[in-house]
Amino acid sequence: MSENIAVLGLGLMGSALVGSLLAAGHRVTVWNRTPAKADPLVAEGATRADTPAQAVAAGSLVIACLLDYPSTHQVLEGTPLEGRVVANLTTGRPSEARETASWVTGRGAGYLDGGIMAVPQMIAKPGALILYSGSRTAFDRYEPALAAMAEPRFTGDDPGLAPLLDLAMLTGMYGQIAGFLEAAALVRSAGYPLGEFTASLLVPWLEAMAAQQPAWAAKIESGDHSTEVSNLEINRAGVENLVRAFHEQGVKPDLLLPLKGVIDRRAARGLAHEGLSGLVEEL
Amino acid sequence: MSENIAVLGLGLMGSALVGSLLAAGHRVTVWNRTPAKADPLVAEGATRADTPAQAVAAGSLVIACLLDYPSTHQVLEGTPLEGRVVANLTTGRPSEARETASWVTGRGAGYLDGGIMAVPQMIAKPGALILYSGSRTAFDRYEPALAAMAEPRFTGDDPGLAPLLDLAMLTGMYGQIAGFLEAAALVRSAGYPLGEFTASLLVPWLEAMAAQQPAWAAKIESGDHSTEVSNLEINRAGVENLVRAFHEQGVKPDLLLPLKGVIDRRAARGLAHEGLSGLVEEL
Repeated sequence: MSENIAVLGLGLMGSALVGSLLAAGHRVTVWNRTPAKADPLVAEGATRADTPAQAVAAGSLVIACLLDYPSTHQVLEGTPLEGRVVANLTTGRPSEARETASWVTGRGAGYLDGGIMAVPQMIAKPGALILYSGSRTAFDRYEPALAAMAEPRFTGDDPGLAPLLDLAMLTGMYGQIAGFLEAAALVRSAGYPLGEFTASLLVPWLEAMAAQQPAWAAKIESGDHSTEVSNLEINRAGVENLVRAFHEQGVKPDLLLPLKGVIDRRAARGLAHEGLSGLVEEL
Repeated sequence: MSENIAVLGLGLMGSALVGSLLAAGHRVTVWNRTPAKADPLVAEGATRADTPAQAVAAGSLVIACLLDYPSTHQVLEGTPLEGRVVANLTTGRPSEARETASWVTGRGAGYLDGGIMAVPQMIAKPGALILYSGSRTAFDRYEPALAAMAEPRFTGDDPGLAPLLDLAMLTGMYGQIAGFLEAAALVRSAGYPLGEFTASLLVPWLEAMAAQQPAWAAKIESGDHSTEVSNLEINRAGVENLVRAFHEQGVKPDLLLPLKGVIDRRAARGLAHEGLSGLVEEL
């Protein structure tokens, strides 16, 4: 079914989204603060709006792809939102999504918050995913249109869920990056070729270890942190040994140090026989 | 070629190694502090030695799989090492490997330090890897025998290299685990099913991100930390936002906090336009 869709914000991501919606046969009205950004999209069939209000008036689904939550508020202020559905794809904190949801629904519109798990080049291609949270009714109504941009996945009624899951994935990524940087510094200190280490040793190892995480998640969900493999006592000794080796090689283990602190905190409760999954209870 | 091999230490790993060597047709003499551990291996064809000296005397290749470096010294003390090759597969720090190498070679033996990248169940199976460092001559002489246990990979003349690369892989793993634990705590704070998040969102994402690491390694090797994707300024804002979201959800971001400190340190040098790979210079 062809929909009337307004898209606010034509950065790299907004423009990619518009392209995918046009390709799927929707009628797309676009607005951007710098109007020239719309030119190539108008050439592809989009309609240019001179104001956010004009764009919103032309769409029953309003997709906002702006810098952050404050600018989204600013742009939507004074537009005719009533009876429409707003899908807000900016990034930010769960609390901001919840505030915006309440502001938008207070003006008579349905609200979806979205977290885009893709770079612009991946839009409309396999592997691109957008997490949504907020109004299930709004999601069900527009799911086919949303699917033109990326696989849409509804995660729950709390509008803060999509940004929270997005942040949780970033969190996992930052941990992995921190581990890589420390490992790289250690390998470099011994003059070993870092490219060889990374490609032939580290990456396959991290992939194998990542595959263990669902089993850890099950332990956390069950609250049973017992282990037969490697308890906190063993890991504490392992991390201490690691930190000592870093110092001996003249490398700062800064990014790893708090792990030792959290292990100590957990062990101080008499739980050194548990596995690393139990550390989640200390966070 | 069938070799005379002595194996000292018959824990789970040592026993698995002996099994693989016997299966490959080598003559294996075994010693363990608790002699009963040798019983099943003797039943498979190993010869039992009553003392470490007796075992060493029977082998031209001596594989030590003991608790740590100090106990390895203790067990090898007073054994007839001259003219033999010692492959020491304990775990520890590069400095310990270098000391042991100098002690062993001072007694007229060749020395290899080994880091086993496998659990006992993986020995002699595809995917099991043992990193070696030290005497290239010794490695070349015994490579076919070592290959019976796991794929042998020589990493360099510095005997500390195998334990260092082993520790670097552990470092990468601990970073990934820290990221997982923080992500899990955040997801749990919103009541979202952790198993679903981990299996369907986090793991595929981490695998995709791990695949980027060789490109980061190339940046580090070249010293060119420029980026067109996401510079330190953007990442600093991202991590600050993340930390704020953690606090709002009542979750402690302890394991992530030092990343912000290292980004700040790098940015204070006027390098906020560089990418995250540049942080390695601060470690």
